[in-house]
Amino acid sequence: MKLTQTQRIWRYSDGEFEEKQDVIATEYPITVKLNGKELLTIICTPEYIEDMVIGFLASERIIIDYQDIKEIRLDEDLGIVHIETSRVFPYFEQLHNKRFITSCCGMSRQGFVFANDALTAKQMSDRNVSLEPSDCFALMDNMNNAADLFQQTGGVHIAALCDTDGFSLTRMDIGRHNALDKIYGHCLRNEIPVKNKVIVFSGRISSEILLKVSKIGCEIVLSKSAPTELAIKLANELGITAVGFIRGNSFNVYSHPERING
Amino acid sequence: MKLTQTQRIWRYSDGEFEEKQDVIATEYPITVKLNGKELLTIICTPEYIEDMVIGFLASERIIIDYQDIKEIRLDEDLGIVHIETSRVFPYFEQLHNKRFITSCCGMSRQGFVFANDALTAKQMSDRNVSLEPSDCFALMDNMNNAADLFQQTGGVHIAALCDTDGFSLTRMDIGRHNALDKIYGHCLRNEIPVKNKVIVFSGRISSEILLKVSKIGCEIVLSKSAPTELAIKLANELGITAVGFIRGNSFNVYSHPERING
Repeated sequence: MKLTQTQRIWRYSDGEFEEKQDVIATEYPITVKLNGKELLTIICTPEYIEDMVIGFLASERIIIDYQDIKEIRLDEDLGIVHIETSRVFPYFEQLHNKRFITSCCGMSRQGFVFANDALTAKQMSDRNVSLEPSDCFALMDNMNNAADLFQQTGGVHIAALCDTDGFSLTRMDIGRHNALDKIYGHCLRNEIPVKNKVIVFSGRISSEILLKVSKIGCEIVLSKSAPTELAIKLANELGITAVGFIRGNSFNVYSHPERING
Repeated sequence: MKLTQTQRIWRYSDGEFEEKQDVIATEYPITVKLNGKELLTIICTPEYIEDMVIGFLASERIIIDYQDIKEIRLDEDLGIVHIETSRVFPYFEQLHNKRFITSCCGMSRQGFVFANDALTAKQMSDRNVSLEPSDCFALMDNMNNAADLFQQTGGVHIAALCDTDGFSLTRMDIGRHNALDKIYGHCLRNEIPVKNKVIVFSGRISSEILLKVSKIGCEIVLSKSAPTELAIKLANELGITAVGFIRGNSFNVYSHPERING
C-alpha cells in the first residue's frame, strides 16, 4: 500500500498557471473485524496498520490485555484487519463512545467524557522523567526532521515517542489519533517500556490526544501547537505535564511544571 | 457556555520562566438524544450547537429532510441536545459508519468508504460559480481575518461559506467537521441557497472534509493546506474543484480546474 501518490496538479504562482506533478498523501479505509464481526472502519495512512489496530483496541479497552490477541491478519486487497482474541472486555459495546454521565453536570469531576476513558486513562503520580528546556527544543526538532512524509505532502500528523538518550520512534498518519495508536501498538507488541519517555506531537493537544498520552502511560507531552481547556483539566487531574507552542526559543507549560527544570 | 477560558501558564522565553495568564479554547461534550435515545457524543466548541447537530444529522442521512425535525432543545447544564423528529431514515443504524464494501476492492469506484456517504454526497455537474485567482486569495484573507478565536487561542479550525459579493458565514470549532456541520445546519434552518457559494477551510482537505462540502452542496473548496489523494479522487468523481496551499501569491488546483479562471 502506497503512502504517497504522484498526481497532476495546476499550480498558480505569480500570475501564471502551470501543470505539474505533485506528491499527495494517500488515505486508506481499514475495517477491523474482531472475532468475525465488523467493529469499525478507520481511515488512515497505510503503514503499521496492525500496530494501529492493537493500539486502538487497547486504548479503547476493547481488549483487556495484549496477550489476549491470538491472531492478527491484514488483508491488503480488501483493507480488512482480522483479529481473533481469547476474550474481549465484556462491557465494551455498552461503554464504547457512551457518555460518562454523572449526577451534577455533563462531565465527571476528572473531566472524563466517555466511560471507557475513565477505565483506561492512567494516573501519573510519579516523576520518572524530567526535561531541561533545551530538551524540549531538541526533541521537537528531532520529530520535525524525522517527518519525511509530512515534509513531502504537508498533509499528515506526526507523533514521536522519545527520550533524551537517543531513543526515538516516529509515526505519521492523516488521522490525529492513529499516529499515537501506532506508537502504542508497537510498544505493546515489542514490550518497550514507556515510563522514561515522552510524547512529541505535531498538532493541537485536544482532550482526545491527552487521553491517548495517558493511556500509553507517558508523563510529558510536547506540542508545536495549543492545548484545549479540557485537555489541560485532564492533564492536571491525570498528572501529565503538557507543553505547547514550542517554537523558536519559547514554549508554554500548561500543567505540572515540576517535570520541566527551570 | 464559554468559548475561551483564562488560565495560568508557565511561559519559557529567552532562558527565563514567567507565570502569566493565557486564553485557552474550551471543549464541550454534547450528547445527542434522538427521539429519546442516546445517539452519540460530539466534542465541540460550544456555540451554534443546534446548527451543528442539524448539520450532522442531515449530512449523515439520519434525518431525510430538515422539515422532519419537530423540536430541538439544548440542555446547557447537562450538555444534551434533545431532538424530536417525525421520522428518521429507516436504515441509518445499519448504515451509519458501516463500510460500503464492493466486490472488487476496499473502496467503491467513486471512492466512497461509508455507505451513508454514497447516499448523501451530491454530484456537482453544473458550473454555477467560478473564481478569479485574486478571489481565492481574497476569500482566504477574509476567513483569516474573521477568525478571532483562532487568533486568540491557536486551537480551532475555521470554515467559511462565502461568495464574491460580500456574503460570508464563518464558523469555528476544535473539531474539523463540526465547523462545516454548523454551516450546513445554519443554511438548512435559514434556507440559505449555497449554489453560488464556496467553502473556505483552514485545515487539510481530507476525504471527510471533501464529502462534507459535497453534502452541503458547494462546487469549490479552498484551503490553506494540503488535500489527500482520496479527497482528490472524490473531488474528481463528485465534480468539485479543490484548491489547496493558498499562501502568499500561489495556490494549487487539484481537481476540476475549469472553475478557476486562468
